Amino acid sequence: MQLISSQALFAGKYQRYQHTSAATQCDMVFSIYLPPAALAGKSVPVLYWLSGLTCTDENFMQKAGAQRIAAELGIALVAPDTSPRGEQVPDDADAAYDMGLGAGFYLNATQPPWNQHYQIERYIVEELPACIESNFPVTSQASISGHSMGGHGALTLALKNPKKFKSVSAFSPIVSPMNCPWGVKALSQYLGDDQTVWQRYDSCALIEQGAEQLPMLIDQGSADDFLEAQLKTELLLDTLNRKNYKATVRMQPDYDHSYYFIATFIEEHLRFHAGYLLD
Amino acid sequence: MQLISSQALFAGKYQRYQHTSAATQCDMVFSIYLPPAALAGKSVPVLYWLSGLTCTDENFMQKAGAQRIAAELGIALVAPDTSPRGEQVPDDADAAYDMGLGAGFYLNATQPPWNQHYQIERYIVEELPACIESNFPVTSQASISGHSMGGHGALTLALKNPKKFKSVSAFSPIVSPMNCPWGVKALSQYLGDDQTVWQRYDSCALIEQGAEQLPMLIDQGSADDFLEAQLKTELLLDTLNRKNYKATVRMQPDYDHSYYFIATFIEEHLRFHAGYLLD
Repeated sequence: MQLISSQALFAGKYQRYQHTSAATQCDMVFSIYLPPAALAGKSVPVLYWLSGLTCTDENFMQKAGAQRIAAELGIALVAPDTSPRGEQVPDDADAAYDMGLGAGFYLNATQPPWNQHYQIERYIVEELPACIESNFPVTSQASISGHSMGGHGALTLALKNPKKFKSVSAFSPIVSPMNCPWGVKALSQYLGDDQTVWQRYDSCALIEQGAEQLPMLIDQGSADDFLEAQLKTELLLDTLNRKNYKATVRMQPDYDHSYYFIATFIEEHLRFHAGYLLD
Repeated sequence: MQLISSQALFAGKYQRYQHTSAATQCDMVFSIYLPPAALAGKSVPVLYWLSGLTCTDENFMQKAGAQRIAAELGIALVAPDTSPRGEQVPDDADAAYDMGLGAGFYLNATQPPWNQHYQIERYIVEELPACIESNFPVTSQASISGHSMGGHGALTLALKNPKKFKSVSAFSPIVSPMNCPWGVKALSQYLGDDQTVWQRYDSCALIEQGAEQLPMLIDQGSADDFLEAQLKTELLLDTLNRKNYKATVRMQPDYDHSYYFIATFIEEHLRFHAGYLLD
């Protein structure tokens, strides 16, 4: 594991590391924020953050303003990249923003040419936490959150791993990739045509199939340009209601899809997770 | 004046506008954050923010996390661009990051080819406040802050206009452009060889010459790579001490030159300014 940078931030440290991933068979970069308590030698819980299309490990750390609250609460923040990277890693033929590099969709690809490197689910759920727990002063207590494609990632990975994550939250998540253009494009290329495989990467389908209850908070801006065609919050509300799955889903008037929306409500998300991580 | 974008943020509005400037003879873009109180019809005071080399009006708004506190305090934030822009505006022959576009140094240039458009001092002190005061629900109460080249801008403009600004603060300011490579390069090209003219753009020289006292807060990171060669905080400390000019200058251990440093301490700067803007 190689340190790329280390910067003081709210009396803690913001660091970026590169390491070789067995899951994705390439070098992966992640960001970590260690709160002051961790620097003082205490083991702290971790909130994993999954970013949206086109992002890297840096966007959340630069724009969300989460470290101020993480410093106060004593929670480490870990943000992985959104896809494998490197010259050997295939990208979309047209370098589209919603497929290939920067668009890993937090799944394990089964179809060539994607299946060799696009094993992001395995990386996020197994390899990265093992790496974090063995290299930093953290406990095994973890929660997960994310935005847009990363909101989809956070919800699906938590629903499939309710013992690994104490709580889950999302901003503007793609709640049902099986039922929106971004999702259909990605799932068909990464996973092939068998839609029963797709269901493992669809929050609505996972809840429909009886996923275990875990604490869930979702914020969605009502002025989000992607709400109607891609995010489709109403599909999740309907599934939650029908399956009696408890979650707090808030429509936030006037807010859009940007990090300004995330910055406004990230404090409430961190305090929500703290209620489960620090109990 | 043309609205470029408008986004909800901490129950206020973040907007970008383009307008034609008489001072710089080109179109200028600025960012403004209007706190909830302003949206509710109250007139609020303004904090102007001047950014550093290579920045636009957006960096501060995306990365500093200032809007949360501005929302709470009821202060508008205005961030102008760091130079004139456009195809007709000259840039450095080598497109260097520290001269020309993105590097206006908050002065009124006297030398060709710069003197037609690089009239940023006049734009910031006169034209922009007049524009803000006639188009938004703000009072004429204003303070000013900035980072690096923008810290230099904030300090020099406030020292020269103590009636216009109630207070001034800076992060990692270039305290004496006459005595560092960035400053000597810019001042000699924008202003020519007469160093008595340069003194109007040098915080140390202005204080040396008896600038009026106004409330001043400065934060400087001790791990800032530019501290020794460019920023030279010790020259300001020496001048303040010799002239008995009161200012709070804090060296912050471990912090670097980045927006992570600014994000950490911006709340204290906003509360400092609020003490004068809202009294």
